[in-house]
Amino acid sequence: MSRAELREVVERLARGELSPEAAEERLARAPLVDLGFARLDARRGERQGVPEAVLAEGKEPEQVVAIVVALRQRGHETILVTRADATVRAAVREAVGEVEEDAGARLLWIARDVPEPAGTVSVVSAGTADGPVLREVATCARLFGAGVRLQEDVGVAGLHRLALALDDLRAADCVVVVAGHDAALASVVGGLVAAPVIAVPTSTGYGVAAGGIPALLAMLTSCAPGVAVVNIDDGFGAATIASRIARAAAGAV
Amino acid sequence: MSRAELREVVERLARGELSPEAAEERLARAPLVDLGFARLDARRGERQGVPEAVLAEGKEPEQVVAIVVALRQRGHETILVTRADATVRAAVREAVGEVEEDAGARLLWIARDVPEPAGTVSVVSAGTADGPVLREVATCARLFGAGVRLQEDVGVAGLHRLALALDDLRAADCVVVVAGHDAALASVVGGLVAAPVIAVPTSTGYGVAAGGIPALLAMLTSCAPGVAVVNIDDGFGAATIASRIARAAAGAV
Amino acid sequence: MSRAELREVVERLARGELSPEAAEERLARAPLVDLGFARLDARRGERQGVPEAVLAEGKEPEQVVAIVVALRQRGHETILVTRADATVRAAVREAVGEVEEDAGARLLWIARDVPEPAGTVSVVSAGTADGPVLREVATCARLFGAGVRLQEDVGVAGLHRLALALDDLRAADCVVVVAGHDAALASVVGGLVAAPVIAVPTSTGYGVAAGGIPALLAMLTSCAPGVAVVNIDDGFGAATIASRIARAAAGAV
Amino acid sequence: MSRAELREVVERLARGELSPEAAEERLARAPLVDLGFARLDARRGERQGVPEAVLAEGKEPEQVVAIVVALRQRGHETILVTRADATVRAAVREAVGEVEEDAGARLLWIARDVPEPAGTVSVVSAGTADGPVLREVATCARLFGAGVRLQEDVGVAGLHRLALALDDLRAADCVVVVAGHDAALASVVGGLVAAPVIAVPTSTGYGVAAGGIPALLAMLTSCAPGVAVVNIDDGFGAATIASRIARAAAGAV
Amino acid sequence: MSRAELREVVERLARGELSPEAAEERLARAPLVDLGFARLDARRGERQGVPEAVLAEGKEPEQVVAIVVALRQRGHETILVTRADATVRAAVREAVGEVEEDAGARLLWIARDVPEPAGTVSVVSAGTADGPVLREVATCARLFGAGVRLQEDVGVAGLHRLALALDDLRAADCVVVVAGHDAALASVVGGLVAAPVIAVPTSTGYGVAAGGIPALLAMLTSCAPGVAVVNIDDGFGAATIASRIARAAAGAV
Amino acid sequence: MSRAELREVVERLARGELSPEAAEERLARAPLVDLGFARLDARRGERQGVPEAVLAEGKEPEQVVAIVVALRQRGHETILVTRADATVRAAVREAVGEVEEDAGARLLWIARDVPEPAGTVSVVSAGTADGPVLREVATCARLFGAGVRLQEDVGVAGLHRLALALDDLRAADCVVVVAGHDAALASVVGGLVAAPVIAVPTSTGYGVAAGGIPALLAMLTSCAPGVAVVNIDDGFGAATIASRIARAAAGAV
Amino acid sequence: MSRAELREVVERLARGELSPEAAEERLARAPLVDLGFARLDARRGERQGVPEAVLAEGKEPEQVVAIVVALRQRGHETILVTRADATVRAAVREAVGEVEEDAGARLLWIARDVPEPAGTVSVVSAGTADGPVLREVATCARLFGAGVRLQEDVGVAGLHRLALALDDLRAADCVVVVAGHDAALASVVGGLVAAPVIAVPTSTGYGVAAGGIPALLAMLTSCAPGVAVVNIDDGFGAATIASRIARAAAGAV
Amino acid sequence: MSRAELREVVERLARGELSPEAAEERLARAPLVDLGFARLDARRGERQGVPEAVLAEGKEPEQVVAIVVALRQRGHETILVTRADATVRAAVREAVGEVEEDAGARLLWIARDVPEPAGTVSVVSAGTADGPVLREVATCARLFGAGVRLQEDVGVAGLHRLALALDDLRAADCVVVVAGHDAALASVVGGLVAAPVIAVPTSTGYGVAAGGIPALLAMLTSCAPGVAVVNIDDGFGAATIASRIARAAAGAV
Repeated sequence: MSRAELREVVERLARGELSPEAAEERLARAPLVDLGFARLDARRGERQGVPEAVLAEGKEPEQVVAIVVALRQRGHETILVTRADATVRAAVREAVGEVEEDAGARLLWIARDVPEPAGTVSVVSAGTADGPVLREVATCARLFGAGVRLQEDVGVAGLHRLALALDDLRAADCVVVVAGHDAALASVVGGLVAAPVIAVPTSTGYGVAAGGIPALLAMLTSCAPGVAVVNIDDGFGAATIASRIARAAAGAV
Repeated sequence: MSRAELREVVERLARGELSPEAAEERLARAPLVDLGFARLDARRGERQGVPEAVLAEGKEPEQVVAIVVALRQRGHETILVTRADATVRAAVREAVGEVEEDAGARLLWIARDVPEPAGTVSVVSAGTADGPVLREVATCARLFGAGVRLQEDVGVAGLHRLALALDDLRAADCVVVVAGHDAALASVVGGLVAAPVIAVPTSTGYGVAAGGIPALLAMLTSCAPGVAVVNIDDGFGAATIASRIARAAAGAV
Repeated sequence: MSRAELREVVERLARGELSPEAAEERLARAPLVDLGFARLDARRGERQGVPEAVLAEGKEPEQVVAIVVALRQRGHETILVTRADATVRAAVREAVGEVEEDAGARLLWIARDVPEPAGTVSVVSAGTADGPVLREVATCARLFGAGVRLQEDVGVAGLHRLALALDDLRAADCVVVVAGHDAALASVVGGLVAAPVIAVPTSTGYGVAAGGIPALLAMLTSCAPGVAVVNIDDGFGAATIASRIARAAAGAV
Repeated sequence: MSRAELREVVERLARGELSPEAAEERLARAPLVDLGFARLDARRGERQGVPEAVLAEGKEPEQVVAIVVALRQRGHETILVTRADATVRAAVREAVGEVEEDAGARLLWIARDVPEPAGTVSVVSAGTADGPVLREVATCARLFGAGVRLQEDVGVAGLHRLALALDDLRAADCVVVVAGHDAALASVVGGLVAAPVIAVPTSTGYGVAAGGIPALLAMLTSCAPGVAVVNIDDGFGAATIASRIARAAAGAV
Repeated sequence: MSRAELREVVERLARGELSPEAAEERLARAPLVDLGFARLDARRGERQGVPEAVLAEGKEPEQVVAIVVALRQRGHETILVTRADATVRAAVREAVGEVEEDAGARLLWIARDVPEPAGTVSVVSAGTADGPVLREVATCARLFGAGVRLQEDVGVAGLHRLALALDDLRAADCVVVVAGHDAALASVVGGLVAAPVIAVPTSTGYGVAAGGIPALLAMLTSCAPGVAVVNIDDGFGAATIASRIARAAAGAV
Repeated sequence: MSRAELREVVERLARGELSPEAAEERLARAPLVDLGFARLDARRGERQGVPEAVLAEGKEPEQVVAIVVALRQRGHETILVTRADATVRAAVREAVGEVEEDAGARLLWIARDVPEPAGTVSVVSAGTADGPVLREVATCARLFGAGVRLQEDVGVAGLHRLALALDDLRAADCVVVVAGHDAALASVVGGLVAAPVIAVPTSTGYGVAAGGIPALLAMLTSCAPGVAVVNIDDGFGAATIASRIARAAAGAV
Repeated sequence: MSRAELREVVERLARGELSPEAAEERLARAPLVDLGFARLDARRGERQGVPEAVLAEGKEPEQVVAIVVALRQRGHETILVTRADATVRAAVREAVGEVEEDAGARLLWIARDVPEPAGTVSVVSAGTADGPVLREVATCARLFGAGVRLQEDVGVAGLHRLALALDDLRAADCVVVVAGHDAALASVVGGLVAAPVIAVPTSTGYGVAAGGIPALLAMLTSCAPGVAVVNIDDGFGAATIASRIARAAAGAV
Repeated sequence: MSRAELREVVERLARGELSPEAAEERLARAPLVDLGFARLDARRGERQGVPEAVLAEGKEPEQVVAIVVALRQRGHETILVTRADATVRAAVREAVGEVEEDAGARLLWIARDVPEPAGTVSVVSAGTADGPVLREVATCARLFGAGVRLQEDVGVAGLHRLALALDDLRAADCVVVVAGHDAALASVVGGLVAAPVIAVPTSTGYGVAAGGIPALLAMLTSCAPGVAVVNIDDGFGAATIASRIARAAAGAV
């Protein structure tokens, strides 16, 4: 299927000239290699129940739509689109219908066959501005089959707020710390829990904090034991490894 | 105990004027807060069997000796000294006696009561020059109670070498990838295994590779799922989180 | 010809008050040095058939138009405008008429006398988001007289996708690898082929990946033999050297 | 006095051919502008009792000696030489006689007329390796007329160690936090005290921590209120502002 | 109170369907922990009269409104919203009514019970473009209870302008220097006053000056004694520590 | 004059309710210190004929207008506004009347009493995209009283274009080289002329070239003798020093 | 073969207690996987005549010796050891006997069966200090089967020196440019030849040039067509791709 | 002449087996192109009296010797060797005889026919540690034919020291400012003089100052008019342009 044909299908879908079902059928008839810009794994059987993730950033909206439609046609029940801005989300929503979304976290997902939650990931953020990344971790981890607990706005500058969260953190199989600026929360939490800690630096802040480099460096140089780090704002990446850790600890792998 | 007194005890120990036992006794009589430059946790009971780690870098040799001696006096059976150069290792060896060492990995350790291994950490390195960090991961993870398997010099430029290692990697509860330069091994391994992957960038190489920044950035931006990263050359840090993950997966926490 | 006169010619061309032919004539009558802001090589004879490339970035649309018109008037049959945004492309299209375009790759070209393809450049990208740069390489290399084959979305995280592309890559005279993030594809491909590899880092991605520095550094420090690197997103540069290599290998220089 | 003459005086002083008194006299007879490489302030009266500081780094040992000798000849009772390595310290010690030194902190000082301590500066460090900078802060602040209290090795990873130090910190007129790595201690202390906090990043650590950039960035982006930062390892700078703050709070300015 | 409910309250408030009083009441009835995205300290008694500061950057407008409303409901008389763009300021203004604003400094505040000014902070800027940060320092310091004097556009390139400001600077308990580019003003002022100097680098300028890194580095490496630095453009941070220093010097702590 | 009054004057001027003359008078009556945000030098007599320059970047349009009006009222005949975007230029144009402008170079100027040209500055640029900076150098240098010659689009990749410019360059009293990317033109020109060379890196280009750092570094490390460098895109700075050099060489200082 | 045994063999070889032949035999009897720290490819037949390269940096001398000995035992006639310092070279020389060396280029090689030269690589350097990297390119390219011509110290600041080299450069199948500082030579050469250009930045120089970043960036942003870049000081990498290009152009692949 | 022969000549010269005259003769007989590693300009006539400069850094001592000897043989009376460490200086001194040296500035020179001084360069440094670079500027500028005046240790933190230097600075044809750390001296001097200012950042200092980047950036972003910058520690470069400026201003070009 050529790029022009693809665009036509997606546009007709958006204008209502083509039903989602018809679009799916047209895309499904095309052998996967015809998509050209993307090669999808068709190992459907072995992956049943595991969500398929599509990184929307850098892709045209119609490319994202085509991938989502093709995945569904091939039997994927749970699909996650990350870094999806408003245009992408609208395109997918129109094409596919029932989706769930989180605008702040730039997520869109279809969750029809999520695995039974196993193990617990505790996600804790330093400030309100870290909320979108915290929610990205939470939603992704849930779709990957982990139980999730949230603790938001647990600043280090007020340790009493951390104290309230401590029981929750200590009961988790894996703790994800989401923080920008100096990310001191990673070290403080790392010193208080025995579970593995996955740290997510965020790009919030101004001056030298903008972009998240200080948080990244601070997390990499944390003196607390048992901390490893993912890319800045990479809630999806943190959820991937955290849910694997938690599910394994619960014997669910 | 003043710094001058401390130096005197350590020097007499080194000259053989004081037996290790006598030195231990002198240090033990001093309340811990007297060390001045270091505050040791004395929660001996709850930590029995867990190795105590001392970062030698930035400390004077006699400070490291004093800490090790004090820890032993308080009942710690397993002690690990990291980033220990030849001078530090010699000082501790003379003061304490039976120790194990790895010069390349700059490690020294006393292991009298290591926990029964539980779970498996598979450590894989890209090249021979990554050997010291690979061995740091391995030794530390063993002392932290994980089973360890090694795969050295598994370069990406020759994928057939990776193929030989694959069964081993897939059987692990946690995989640690040690690589410098472009660290492509992290993405390749991350795409082949389902276990959590902890990536350790190394500072090997020349030109822009020197210092390890390309490896660090590459590992942070790996497209493979389930990868988290520690500081450059931080074999100890990787071992800490990897052994926690592996032991939890084996139900040993 | 003063800048004001130039602007007038171009504006009248855009309003239809001046036919493309008349505009060409006016510009052609002006000695080349009169353009002022640009000095064009007039060695027409010796270059017949070789495309002339114009970097649009940083130039005013009317400057690009004037250069293209002047080149055509002097007999250049094949002209390539790179980094051409929508405004520039529209201005040239209106002024010159029959052009080809690729909006995503920001390319516009006139190809009337492309050399017979000689040698093969195989262009391979890591992900869908690298598509625009991959297409920039492909179009430019074709205009420079090389045969081109494409392999898109060949991720390292799924090596089986690479396996499908391997025969194609091994048959090429030069391989161009287009990848962002950790750019591990460069090392993996470099380890599998014997032809020279030109690596193009892309600026796709977020967090530390944004801007393409990790991909650039990774490609520069690749352990695979036979790899050299061009600027981030520089599909044009990669095509230039790759087509030279391929044509020479085919004996066409 | 030419550079050659200067060197001769210092060398004869070092060989014992010239008494310190004679050397002082020779240097004192030379008008200050004759030193050439240094211009000393001679406003002796207004500065009585305030220590004069000499940065040794980048100066030849004989230059440091000449400055110290000239300052003493002009009536300065309290002189502080910072960043003084063993060679410089030996040269000054031989030339001047009774000095105090701290090898680790690279300090040498003569303190004959230190102002009465006023106000309290509490200096707290994160780890043993921060000791030299902590001692540089302490010695300098004492010479500048502040009362000083020390809390060493107060890691964030073990908050109970911080708890012990808290009363001391809260009683201070100014708190100086000395920390490397992720410098989380700055934020934690900043959240617990109401006094101004001066943060000193240290260059301890390895990997990305080496050189102190992560600590510097973390301290600059601390969420805690009331924190300002000095250069990496700049114990002298921290002492200067901290002692001013403390003395003013105690009404001693 | 769920995020959806929160948004509804704020939107109705904006449309005039809900009076500010009613909105306050609805939010006040919700236990603080229900805000979810933010945890507010309720230690009202001990903080009476101290302004509560809300960093708007990174928060949704309705989140800022909810926090401000909740704070007022709990008795805070003085509230400061920093980094508040036009949208945020409009939202708070509509919801709360009588506020003061400074668009350039991106500040909004309610000041009903400001402490009696004690001590003097002198704020001096290098150029007109530093005005917004200078005003942020000034407004914040006033709300924190310090007396404030301003000296704007005191460039180093024309030292006679500095001369006019000197008496003012020398009379201050704390001097705040606001400067971009090479920030030479910090060193010059630091050499002329005996009070502590807090330096604020600004992000004004172009080329390598853009973003403020040169100013930050210059201030950190100033040779003048008694200077400490805050984050780029961090007028709020400078005001916090400067007002503490000034009030303590005036015996008001 | 308060900020509010200032804004009112400027707005009335813009609406035509106030003639330029009346506005000038109102501003002139206010003592200069009343402008508040800016301090103007009134040393009119000694500066007669020397252009006064106003950096518009970071200033509000009404601030720029007020400064320009005040300068003219005080007798400055030649005024130069740099980094002036369209809004600023429109505001000044409306308020003051007869001005000259260069939109691409973001310049606006009033030139009534330019000094007689003395000496020659030859300005040479590498590519068409460097045109705005080249024109900024040229206009500023003319206003500062130097004779100016231009050579545009003299690329290093085609040395024959440079050959045509050589006589011109060798006759100059000072050569200004304007170039982005790798800025090789600076070294090539520096090797061919005996006059001082001022190099201006430009921010043109993409990938690692974007922002101009490679050009800046290349110019700073040029092996050619007699080259010094100004900030990225700083045509004004280059013109300042180049015109001083040229006028002095012509004996006009 | 354990590491201890390996060390013993190498030490006995060095002390003359073991003949090179006996050592080779002992190592050869050990299966390759026993080396542990290195995995050697044994595909001897297909690689006959192609040199095997060993990167010595980061390896212990005895590890390098063991690899070289094992390679020879398996029939490799041409072996190249790069980044070999004096210690490594001495160890290999003692163990293996007849070797060739270039101390400045840190190379050691055994060349018994070098392929017949095909195609021409022209290597050109900017200054005398680039000599070691130039020689590394030359020696490696010769061992890889390319004809090599050298042009040393061809500075851009004196274009007449380049003129002398031009015929040579234009006759080459591939040109390698070796340059530090601003690396302007890459652009100038790139503008003069039609062959592919491989650029090698060198780390020579001081100030911002030290380490080679300006040269690397300049080469990546060269405006000349047909240039690609390798890592700083990576003469080996440049030789690998250049010899492939040259041999293919000569029809020898 | 091969490299081996060259080394032999130089070694025999050093052992006294060959007189300097004989060595010169041997080298002189070899055609210049035989030096291989260096190409010397032989345009002796046109350059009479202009010093020839040799950058020693990165060259072998015997290479420097050979170049110096060859230059003298060809009639150069004034030769300057920069960045010459003790080994290089000793080698040249032994080979050539009467030389002048400045160990701190790493300079060696032979000055037999220096042009008559014309114009005045005033060199001013911020601190004693900048002395070596200040002296490099001074010596080079003298050899290039400029009159030179020095002002050392003129710190900005004590403006009264600058006041003493002002008459001198204002009388110069060109001012060279040498400063490390925040380099505020450049802006202050730039605001006080009307002559062109060449700024030399130095690498003195610790923490973020180490290496000289803050000084470089500060000088590039100086608000003072008429300032241009050379590489860090590049006293030679500053002297080159400054002496050209001064001589031209004095009508001596």
